[in-house]
Amino acid sequence: MADILHRVGIKASADAVYQALATRDGLAGWWTDDTRGESKVGGTLVFRFSNDGQDMGGFQMRVLELDPARRVRWQVVDGPEEWIDTRVGFELKQEDDYCIVLFKHQDWKEPVEFMHHCSTKWAIFLMSLKSLVETGKGAPSPGDVKIDNWN
Amino acid sequence: MADILHRVGIKASADAVYQALATRDGLAGWWTDDTRGESKVGGTLVFRFSNDGQDMGGFQMRVLELDPARRVRWQVVDGPEEWIDTRVGFELKQEDDYCIVLFKHQDWKEPVEFMHHCSTKWAIFLMSLKSLVETGKGAPSPGDVKIDNWN
Repeated sequence: MADILHRVGIKASADAVYQALATRDGLAGWWTDDTRGESKVGGTLVFRFSNDGQDMGGFQMRVLELDPARRVRWQVVDGPEEWIDTRVGFELKQEDDYCIVLFKHQDWKEPVEFMHHCSTKWAIFLMSLKSLVETGKGAPSPGDVKIDNWN
Repeated sequence: MADILHRVGIKASADAVYQALATRDGLAGWWTDDTRGESKVGGTLVFRFSNDGQDMGGFQMRVLELDPARRVRWQVVDGPEEWIDTRVGFELKQEDDYCIVLFKHQDWKEPVEFMHHCSTKWAIFLMSLKSLVETGKGAPSPGDVKIDNWN
């Protein structure tokens, strides 16, 4: 098993960061405009991505945990084969003026090339989360920063 | 053991990307201004970082492999304790107009919080590498993008 790990510090309260992770509107503000479903424990969220108007696929997540200002966890139930049954988690803690986000996308079966891509892409989207919370403006899909020929 | 993985696609030749990874001037253009030493197999490179004029420490790497337009590999011989004996590698391959960089910083003993930070920071610096090669201008330390309270 292999995991993608990241750490981003956001100059904001853990409550503010939690809102961007635990609500559909928050998620749409930094990950993808096209976020559907219900952010409640046991509920399902659907994230769809596009590029130049073309559907690029997406992910369906079961919400495992919503612990206000502390933790959000999902399990991938549909999407690219490599993502199925992997888990995504965000741990929050306050350090002075910063809310520290410890991100983990865990239980990849193999460290395939697509995992390398997703690791870099998660970093870019976490910087979008930081921008959303600090400035009110994120860079979600389809306006996200392109990192390679896979986008 | 745990690894940091990334994938970035750079619209350039593998030769051009290799120059930015295998020469001191290239490295100074995207990772840190303060790059010293010799980029030759068996040689040592020293990378120092600063923030607001304050020394933030750095890394010393032994160059393990320089394979033109294909691969660069280093071993960490001095720096933060968690980095000692880890290895950093860049694999290059051409896909149409893109040189794909598969990055690996491997053999971390534990997935500590500092590893989460370094994973995100590597993504940001690889975007700086992409910018350097595609536009002639990177964002090396001390002008790098700050991601958290650790910078």
